Amino acid sequence: MTGPEFKPLLPVKQPVPSDIEIAQSVEPVHIAKIAEAVGLLPEEFDLYGIHKAKVKLSVRDRLADAPNGKYVVVAGITPTPLGEGKSTTTIGLCQALGAYLDKKVLTCVRQPSQGPTFGIKGGAAGGGYSQVIPMEEMNLHLTGDIHAITAANNLLAAAIDVRMFHERTQTDEALFNRLCPADKQGKRRFAPVMLRRLAKLGITKTDPEELTPEERRDFARLDLDPASITWRRVIDTNDRFLRSITVGQGTEERGQTRGTGFDITVSSEIMAVLALATDLADMRERLGRMVVGNDSKGRPVTADDLGAGGALTVLMKDAILPTLMQTLERTPVLVHAGPFANIAHGNSSVVSDQIGLKLVGPEGYVVTEAGFGADIGMEKFMNIKCRASGLTPDCVVLVATVRALKMHGGGPPVVAGTPLHHDYTTENVPLVSAGCCNLVRHIQNARKYGVPVVVAVNRFASDTDAELEAVRAAALEAGASAAVICAHHGLGGAGAVELGQAVIAACSPETKPEFKFLYDVNLSIKEKIEIIAREMYHASGVEYKPEAEAQIEKYTRMGFDKLPICMAKTQYSFSHDASLKGAPSGFILPIRDVRASVGAGFLYPLVGNMMTMPGLPTRPCFYDIDLDPATGKIVGLS
Amino acid sequence: MTGPEFKPLLPVKQPVPSDIEIAQSVEPVHIAKIAEAVGLLPEEFDLYGIHKAKVKLSVRDRLADAPNGKYVVVAGITPTPLGEGKSTTTIGLCQALGAYLDKKVLTCVRQPSQGPTFGIKGGAAGGGYSQVIPMEEMNLHLTGDIHAITAANNLLAAAIDVRMFHERTQTDEALFNRLCPADKQGKRRFAPVMLRRLAKLGITKTDPEELTPEERRDFARLDLDPASITWRRVIDTNDRFLRSITVGQGTEERGQTRGTGFDITVSSEIMAVLALATDLADMRERLGRMVVGNDSKGRPVTADDLGAGGALTVLMKDAILPTLMQTLERTPVLVHAGPFANIAHGNSSVVSDQIGLKLVGPEGYVVTEAGFGADIGMEKFMNIKCRASGLTPDCVVLVATVRALKMHGGGPPVVAGTPLHHDYTTENVPLVSAGCCNLVRHIQNARKYGVPVVVAVNRFASDTDAELEAVRAAALEAGASAAVICAHHGLGGAGAVELGQAVIAACSPETKPEFKFLYDVNLSIKEKIEIIAREMYHASGVEYKPEAEAQIEKYTRMGFDKLPICMAKTQYSFSHDASLKGAPSGFILPIRDVRASVGAGFLYPLVGNMMTMPGLPTRPCFYDIDLDPATGKIVGLS
Repeated sequence: MTGPEFKPLLPVKQPVPSDIEIAQSVEPVHIAKIAEAVGLLPEEFDLYGIHKAKVKLSVRDRLADAPNGKYVVVAGITPTPLGEGKSTTTIGLCQALGAYLDKKVLTCVRQPSQGPTFGIKGGAAGGGYSQVIPMEEMNLHLTGDIHAITAANNLLAAAIDVRMFHERTQTDEALFNRLCPADKQGKRRFAPVMLRRLAKLGITKTDPEELTPEERRDFARLDLDPASITWRRVIDTNDRFLRSITVGQGTEERGQTRGTGFDITVSSEIMAVLALATDLADMRERLGRMVVGNDSKGRPVTADDLGAGGALTVLMKDAILPTLMQTLERTPVLVHAGPFANIAHGNSSVVSDQIGLKLVGPEGYVVTEAGFGADIGMEKFMNIKCRASGLTPDCVVLVATVRALKMHGGGPPVVAGTPLHHDYTTENVPLVSAGCCNLVRHIQNARKYGVPVVVAVNRFASDTDAELEAVRAAALEAGASAAVICAHHGLGGAGAVELGQAVIAACSPETKPEFKFLYDVNLSIKEKIEIIAREMYHASGVEYKPEAEAQIEKYTRMGFDKLPICMAKTQYSFSHDASLKGAPSGFILPIRDVRASVGAGFLYPLVGNMMTMPGLPTRPCFYDIDLDPATGKIVGLS
Repeated sequence: MTGPEFKPLLPVKQPVPSDIEIAQSVEPVHIAKIAEAVGLLPEEFDLYGIHKAKVKLSVRDRLADAPNGKYVVVAGITPTPLGEGKSTTTIGLCQALGAYLDKKVLTCVRQPSQGPTFGIKGGAAGGGYSQVIPMEEMNLHLTGDIHAITAANNLLAAAIDVRMFHERTQTDEALFNRLCPADKQGKRRFAPVMLRRLAKLGITKTDPEELTPEERRDFARLDLDPASITWRRVIDTNDRFLRSITVGQGTEERGQTRGTGFDITVSSEIMAVLALATDLADMRERLGRMVVGNDSKGRPVTADDLGAGGALTVLMKDAILPTLMQTLERTPVLVHAGPFANIAHGNSSVVSDQIGLKLVGPEGYVVTEAGFGADIGMEKFMNIKCRASGLTPDCVVLVATVRALKMHGGGPPVVAGTPLHHDYTTENVPLVSAGCCNLVRHIQNARKYGVPVVVAVNRFASDTDAELEAVRAAALEAGASAAVICAHHGLGGAGAVELGQAVIAACSPETKPEFKFLYDVNLSIKEKIEIIAREMYHASGVEYKPEAEAQIEKYTRMGFDKLPICMAKTQYSFSHDASLKGAPSGFILPIRDVRASVGAGFLYPLVGNMMTMPGLPTRPCFYDIDLDPATGKIVGLS
C-alpha cells in the first residue's frame, strides 16, 4: 500500500508529464506484432497504418469451440465532474496483468467522440502512464467508425424528409410507379427490402402488378406523422447552434419546413446498434428495424420501410470490426463503439468482448469498461449488454477516489475549471469515512448480480495513508473481495500489480459465481423501471409525467414492451438530482418521458434533461492544437 | 478503327455486364504489390486493408532530383447529362499504357462523393472493363479523406456561431481573460495561433499583460458581421432539406438565430485546399487564411482569427496523403481529392500528380483527369492547378462521343432517365458533322496553352464507322495531333491501345511544347474574367450584376485581386445558358456574384445558380443496396 512492489518498465518521471508528452515518448510497436502476440492469424486483421488494425469477426468463428477467458468489467463510484480515472484504471490494470503478471490480457474500451477533443475536455485514451497509444490516433478519426455512423444516420434522416416531400407532391399512382418502375422489358419488381414492408402490411404478393390500388397506396405511402419523428441528424462536432433548427426553408422544398436538430454522432441509435450487434446479419436486422416515427394511424415506421436498412449496413460494414491498438506497455487493446451512457447503454462493443474472450483463452483476462457511475454503466452492462452478448462477468472492479468520497461525505462542490477546496487537498478522514456510503451502495448493487467486487482506489498525490485505509476498510466490510490502492497513473502497470493480483484471485473462486439479471424482460415497462429505481437507486417510488404514461402505453401497444430498460439519468447521484450526493434514498424518481431505440433494443426513460449536443467554450482547446509541419507531429492535444 | 489490335487480358463478356459485376469478378492483388511495382519503398506507404494504401509525401522528397514523367490531362467536350466517359477513358488509357504498351503509368483521379452513391447516379470509379477496384471501396469511405473534410469544415462552422455568441454575451475584459487565462503561476500567454491575429492587427507585443484596453478589445472581438458569413456547414449526404435552414433556435442560444445551410462536403473550400496544397506546411497556411466573413469594418475574418487553423490541419493530416488503388488490369491509381468543378477547380490533387511524375520516371506517364467539359475543367487545370503545382502538361486528351456531337449538331435534348431519341441510335453523319464545331473549339482552346491535343472518341455500340470517321477528320483538321476511336468500356485496356500509342507520340515531340498560361494573375479581376470569357467561351462581353461589382470592389480592397479566377459556370454549354449547344459566340456572359476561396487561392465568379447540395429521388438507388451477411459482399451498388 505504501509503494509499488514492482519496478516500472517505463522510464517514469515525477511530476507526471502531460498525457501527449508521455504518449509521444513511447514508440509503439508495429500493430502486426501485437496482433501476432494476441493470437490473430495474418488473414484475421487488416492494417490501417502501422499502429491500428481492424480485427475480423472470422477469428471468433475459428475459436468458437475454445473456452472463454475471465471477463472483468470496470465500473466506478458516483464521480465528481473531474472523473475518477475509470479508463485509466482499466488500462493500468491491463498493463499490470499483461506486462507484470504474465497473463494474456485484452482491454476493451470505447472509441472517444472527436467533438469534445476540440472543445473542453481534450482526448480520452487513459492518462499518465496508463494510456492507449498513439493517443492522437485514438482521439481523431481512428479507423472511421464514427464517421460511418454519421453517414448512415444522416442518410436515413435525408430519406425521411425527402420521402415526406415526395409523398406530399405525388399521386398514389405516380409514387408507386416511381418506387416500382418497369424495367426495359416492361416488368416491375420489388426490391428485396420492399418485401419486408409488404410482409409488415400483411401483403404476401410478390408481383407489383397484382397489388390492388389500396395495397399500392398502403405500400407506397409511409404517411409519416411529422410530429412523431424522433430521428435527428448527427455530427461529430460540438456545435450547439445545431441543437434546435428548422430545415427545408429553401424555395425548392415548397414550404415543407420542420423543426428538428443535430445530436453528436455518438448519441445516434446506430452507435448503440454497433455496440450491441453480434454480427453482420444481426446488425442488418437491427438497422432495418430502427423506428424513426409513426404514421398517422400510430404504426411505427422503420428504416426498412424507407428502403434504407441495406444501405445503412453497407455504410457500417467496416465499422463492425473492432480496432486493435496497444497500451504504453504494449498490451493489446480493442477500441470499438462508444454509445452514450445516458440515452444509450455506455459500453463498448459486444463483438470486442466476444473476440477478446476467445483470444485470451481460459487463463487470460478481458477487461472491459462500463461508462458513468456503476448505477448506470454497470447496471446497463449487466442487463442490456450481457443479455445481447450471452456473456456474464467473473468480476466487477469498482474504481473509487478519496476525492469523490470526500464529496459524498459532505465536502464542498467540485467544479471543473475552479481550484479544489482545501478539504480535498489535506487529510480529512471523517469526511472520507462519511462518503464511503456511496462506495458501499455500489458494492452492494454489484453483489446483487452475484459477481465478486474488487475495489480499486485510484490514489492521488494528496491522499494520505489514513484516508486510503478508511476506504479499504469500508469496502471490505461492505463485501468487496478485495480493496487495493493503485498508482497506475504515475507508474503504469507497476502501479496496479496489486490490483491485478486481486482481480486474478477474485476470478478464481472455488465455484463460478451465480450470475443473476436484475429483472425479467417480460415484465411490464413500469415494473422494470421500478425494479431498477428501487434496487439500484433506492428510490421509494417512481412518478410518471403524462408524456411518459402516453409513451409507455404506445410502446406497449406497438409490442416494444419486452425490451430491456436503459435509464437516461444523471451519473452524479444515485437519484435524479445531481446535487444529492452520498447514498440518498426515499426519493421519488420522476420519469419525464420514455423513448425507444428499437434497433438497438431498449427503451430509455428520460429522468431529467439529457444533453445530446455539447458546445464549445470561449477558448476551445483547439486554440492549442497544431501540427509541426516538419515532423508531422501533433502538438497541444491533451 | 474497326476493332482491337490487342487481345484483351481480361475475360471480357458481351453484352458488357454491370459495373459491380465486372468489378467483383476480378480479384484485386494485394496493394503492397502494386506499391512495390510502382517503386514505393515499404516505409513510404501505409496499408488500409489489403486493397488501399496511403502514400506518404516523403517519396517525393526522396525522388526530388529525379526527372519527371510525361504529364497527360484528360478533358472532355461539352457533355450530355449522361456523361461521355471521361473517367472511363482516363482509366482505360492507363490500362492500355501499363498492361499492353509496357509503360510505367499512374492514373490520378478524384475521390467520388459518397452522397450521390446512394442517390441517383451510383458510384464513380470508371465503368465497364475500365474501372478502379474495389469499386465499393472507392465509392464508400475510402480512407476517410472526405470525412476528415466534413469534420474540419464543421469545426470551423461551430467556432463561428459560438464565437459570435460568446462575444455577444461577454464584456471585453471577460472575453480577453477567457481567451488568455492566467496559468497556475498567474502568467498569461498567447497561443501561437493568436500571434497571427496580433500580427494582422499590427500589434507586435507578445505579452498579453502589455496590451492596452483598446488592443485587448480589438484582439478579442472578431466582431463578425452575421450577414457577411459565407462559411456553411457540410455533410456527405444528399440532403436537400438542409439547403436552407435556421440555426440557434434552442433557448440556450438566447435568440441568436441565423439563416444558413449545408452543402455537400466535396463543395467545401477545404476540399479545394486539399487538392491544391503542396505539403503539410502549405496546407496549414491555406487552412488558416480561409476567410469566413468580415467584421463590421469590412476586414476579412479568417480561420486563424478564430484560432482554428492548427486544429483543422490536425484533422486533415492523413487526408493529405493520396490513396493508392488499382485498375482492373492492375495498373496503379492514386485517388485523391474531389473538388467541385463549378465553385472549385474540379481536379484531383497536386500532390498526387507530383508524386506520380516522380514515380513513373522520364519514360513513364501520369494521366490525370479534369472535371466537366474542357472549357471548365481543362481551363482550371491549366490556370489554377498548374500554377499551384508548377507542373505543365505534355498532352491533352479530349474525350468526345458521337452522341454528344449529335446533340451539338442540333439533335433533340438528351435527358437522363428517358430513352434516347432515335437520331442518337441510328446513323446520321450530317448531324455529327454539324456538332463537330463543339469539338473543334475545345481543340482550339487547348492549343492556346501550347499543348498538343489527342482526341479520344469513346465508341458506343450504335456508332457507325462513317460517323466516327467524320469526327476523326474534323479533329485532325482542327489541329489535333491524333484522333482515335476507343473501345475500353467493353474491352479494357485492349480497347485503348491505339489511344495509348497516340498519346505516346504526342508526348514525344522534337521540342518540348511551349506552355502558356491564358492570363497573368496580376491583371485586375475583371480583366481576368474577360480573358476567359472571350478566349475560352467566345463571349462578346461580360455583364456584372451589382452584387458582383460590389464584391469585386471589396476583394480588390482586401488585396485578393491577384488570385486566379475559377468560373462557376454550367458545363453544358460554352456559354452561361445550358441550352446553347454547339459552339455559341457573341453572347454576353452575366456575372451574378463573385466569391472568394482565399485559402484555396481563387476567386469564383458565379455565372448562374450553382447547386451545392443534391437531393434524393423518390426511389433512391439505396433501395437496391444491401450486403450479403454470409459473404460480406455488397450487392446493388452501380
